[in-house]
Amino acid sequence: MDKQRFADGLRERIRVIIFEADTPAGRLFDLVLLCCIVASILVVAVESIPTYQQRYGDVLLAIEWGFTALFTLEYLLRLFSTPRPVRYMTSFFGVIDLLAILPAYLGILLSGGHGFMIVRALRILRIFRILKLGHFLKEGRQLMLALRASFTKISIFLLFILILVTILGGIMYLVEGGVNERFNSIPISIYWAIVTLTTVGYGDITPITPLGQFLSALVMILGYAIIAVPTGIVTGELINQSRQAAAITTRTCKHCTREGHDVDARFCKFCGTGL
Amino acid sequence: MDKQRFADGLRERIRVIIFEADTPAGRLFDLVLLCCIVASILVVAVESIPTYQQRYGDVLLAIEWGFTALFTLEYLLRLFSTPRPVRYMTSFFGVIDLLAILPAYLGILLSGGHGFMIVRALRILRIFRILKLGHFLKEGRQLMLALRASFTKISIFLLFILILVTILGGIMYLVEGGVNERFNSIPISIYWAIVTLTTVGYGDITPITPLGQFLSALVMILGYAIIAVPTGIVTGELINQSRQAAAITTRTCKHCTREGHDVDARFCKFCGTGL
Amino acid sequence: MDKQRFADGLRERIRVIIFEADTPAGRLFDLVLLCCIVASILVVAVESIPTYQQRYGDVLLAIEWGFTALFTLEYLLRLFSTPRPVRYMTSFFGVIDLLAILPAYLGILLSGGHGFMIVRALRILRIFRILKLGHFLKEGRQLMLALRASFTKISIFLLFILILVTILGGIMYLVEGGVNERFNSIPISIYWAIVTLTTVGYGDITPITPLGQFLSALVMILGYAIIAVPTGIVTGELINQSRQAAAITTRTCKHCTREGHDVDARFCKFCGTGL
Amino acid sequence: MDKQRFADGLRERIRVIIFEADTPAGRLFDLVLLCCIVASILVVAVESIPTYQQRYGDVLLAIEWGFTALFTLEYLLRLFSTPRPVRYMTSFFGVIDLLAILPAYLGILLSGGHGFMIVRALRILRIFRILKLGHFLKEGRQLMLALRASFTKISIFLLFILILVTILGGIMYLVEGGVNERFNSIPISIYWAIVTLTTVGYGDITPITPLGQFLSALVMILGYAIIAVPTGIVTGELINQSRQAAAITTRTCKHCTREGHDVDARFCKFCGTGL
Repeated sequence: MDKQRFADGLRERIRVIIFEADTPAGRLFDLVLLCCIVASILVVAVESIPTYQQRYGDVLLAIEWGFTALFTLEYLLRLFSTPRPVRYMTSFFGVIDLLAILPAYLGILLSGGHGFMIVRALRILRIFRILKLGHFLKEGRQLMLALRASFTKISIFLLFILILVTILGGIMYLVEGGVNERFNSIPISIYWAIVTLTTVGYGDITPITPLGQFLSALVMILGYAIIAVPTGIVTGELINQSRQAAAITTRTCKHCTREGHDVDARFCKFCGTGL
Repeated sequence: MDKQRFADGLRERIRVIIFEADTPAGRLFDLVLLCCIVASILVVAVESIPTYQQRYGDVLLAIEWGFTALFTLEYLLRLFSTPRPVRYMTSFFGVIDLLAILPAYLGILLSGGHGFMIVRALRILRIFRILKLGHFLKEGRQLMLALRASFTKISIFLLFILILVTILGGIMYLVEGGVNERFNSIPISIYWAIVTLTTVGYGDITPITPLGQFLSALVMILGYAIIAVPTGIVTGELINQSRQAAAITTRTCKHCTREGHDVDARFCKFCGTGL
Repeated sequence: MDKQRFADGLRERIRVIIFEADTPAGRLFDLVLLCCIVASILVVAVESIPTYQQRYGDVLLAIEWGFTALFTLEYLLRLFSTPRPVRYMTSFFGVIDLLAILPAYLGILLSGGHGFMIVRALRILRIFRILKLGHFLKEGRQLMLALRASFTKISIFLLFILILVTILGGIMYLVEGGVNERFNSIPISIYWAIVTLTTVGYGDITPITPLGQFLSALVMILGYAIIAVPTGIVTGELINQSRQAAAITTRTCKHCTREGHDVDARFCKFCGTGL
Repeated sequence: MDKQRFADGLRERIRVIIFEADTPAGRLFDLVLLCCIVASILVVAVESIPTYQQRYGDVLLAIEWGFTALFTLEYLLRLFSTPRPVRYMTSFFGVIDLLAILPAYLGILLSGGHGFMIVRALRILRIFRILKLGHFLKEGRQLMLALRASFTKISIFLLFILILVTILGGIMYLVEGGVNERFNSIPISIYWAIVTLTTVGYGDITPITPLGQFLSALVMILGYAIIAVPTGIVTGELINQSRQAAAITTRTCKHCTREGHDVDARFCKFCGTGL
């Protein structure tokens, strides 16, 4: 009985530390976890560089396994302490936490070649945990709200872009297709249209016929002009929000019942009665 | 007589389904048509990839002819059901609908080589039909209004850009023309100026003389700075619109029943009656 | 005496046609001149393409001389009709008008080789005359005002950009200078910094050392972020202007002397008196 | 005694000239110093070009030493005249001033090879002194304020970008890693993600697999859309500021002498007295 109660208490205490961010211990845990994640990502990144892999392969593998052990412990503790283990396992962060440790173990079972080392890069997805920090920041929330408010408009804009690059890619395939071996299919022409319209301009696929160059010049100017649209949408939303935040003064004068008084006003600006 | 009436009724029912989008049947038709268009575009795109063309050429051709038959039937039904067939045939969508099926038939008559397969890419233009959906969305209409309102300003801006790139192209031809074989004509130099000013930067044509590099650095900074202009125009319009939308108060004068009074108005601005 | 008066009258009539744009004849002259300029630029552009030059060289030369004769006549008429010939000759458009015809004549005197044909491209500068049209457009004037108002801020921004690319170029020269033969001098490194910061990204000069790639990644993100500054400046000015334009209602109520009435208001919205 | 006083007076007079910018002499000193800095940077830049180095090496070295002597004198005078020499030496500009002269002297001691000539490029950092000018300009201060106000939001945005490119780089390493030798490590893939997301698009690393091209098309469109975010933030701040500046009316209450009343206010909002 006591054992059960002790386990429950322990479980609750672990849960508060791991899942909550309000207590000092919880904040410390979050910070340490974040450092571990960033460090493990750095190790994965360094390991992927061939020369480093050759020279420090053993050391990196050891550190790698250390992090894998740590994250496995964390994963098990999360499963143990949460009252709803299945819900955690199937949640967004639960799947990512599992993906961060699974490839290492699978590597042993399947005599992991180069392929599995690459899959380890999935650990990078754990970086999403940083975003949890962001939610606590007021400024970040404001940004999120503005982006969510402009989501519909930006979706329509992106749909329009999609239609546009499909047509542009098709036309360029008609124009350059026979002459320029780079434009050898419609999908690659659409890829070119996206590269050009977004002003990225790799230069791996470029038009060589005069008509193709003329058309791509039009695409560039179009891309240069319509970049204004998403910018205008987001800016408009951000300004709307700050205006709404500024406009919230529901203070009404009791005498003349008029509104619109500043936050620092002590007297009605229309009739002079004290607020 | 009855036959005629039956034909008229059928025609009317087909017309409502094909041309209107208010009834459930009409909406379903639009949705199915849209899926067919997207699918047929995917087939055209896949067919244009040489390796797929070799391997699955026969299957793709069969699907292609299936869609051609379907779109031909649709085209004939549109012609049959609309009260003004000529007007539909010469309308924007009428021409596109015809262009989507014609190349396939011409291909048989003229023992269509590779060229006609390319022309089939014109079917991509049918994607414009998606835009019909957009018109029903409030957000899309707002965007359209803002873009239309900023049309004059953006046209002037584009005219200015055109003059600018002509002059810049001419100057670069003077500077690099003799030395750099890439700048071998004024049109190609203007093409370079557009590539650079819009910050696309393919890199297929780059200056090699110090003076040319200095000038192109100026062009880049110019392009980096004036991208602000279309953005400013569209943003200004979008903000104006949301302000106007916010300002349209629903306060109606009881006397003259006109709307549009300010939030702080105490008397109707049209007839002078107290609000 | 009469001859003198006749000459004066003629001169005045020509002046009104050539220099003024208010009369129908003046407007027609401007339009024809503009078409001639655009056509002559097209000829110069086409002539610069090697293949066209070889094939249609004679025809193009003839058209070229036709335009030269026309522009010479126009230049002489301008000199003849203006009351201040020296002032016109030394004015911006006077110099450009001369530069448009001079190279052709110098070509004869100096047995003009390829070099002089290139100089003919200076005729492109005459395109500036189109801008004269722009001044009559209200929208263009508004844009100009907004750009002029944001001129100081944008200048400071560009000065900051100049300092930034100088420092970035210097640092990249230190980092890549010894290893990468592309970064073989500080000016070229500064050129690279401009290409990267403005997100043009030709790709003719790219870093190859890890440190260089890390630094250039920072430069890119910097460039991606600070493009917001000129955009913000111009947008702010454009919005300010449209707000000022909207706010200009100097209509004051005679009864309560309060301002801020809408353009369509017929009664004071505060006291109900007729405006 | 008198000597001491004379030295103090001289020190004070030098301090006013060198460190202050209010007196005519101080302004002249700042201007001359700025010209020297720009000239010395030009010399360093020209010296770094191999061909110029070979031809005019001796002349450039002489000018170089002239500037070194001048800047050494200036540095010593600053040390002599400031009442807190240590504080100056450890200040931002103190360190930069020292870095501008040190490499030249170290070059003699260590028989300076090419390496030290490169280090001389550090003199470019002195260009920061120009920014001192900027602080006196009202427009520059406004820009700075707006940028500082949007600092938190832009930091969050940049953190988000950092997370995004890490994940995108990791995914592209998984997709292209085995096939495309350019994507041979995660850091280089992250570098690619930054080059693409910021729409720089060098083209030195480009995807070759269809899936990789599809993913990079998504990255481009993402980069094209989210450039709106920093722009929106800065624009919003700039508009907020100009609104605040416009809202500060100069109407002062006669009773309590406080300012900041709205244009339509009839009574002081702080003490209730009629305006």
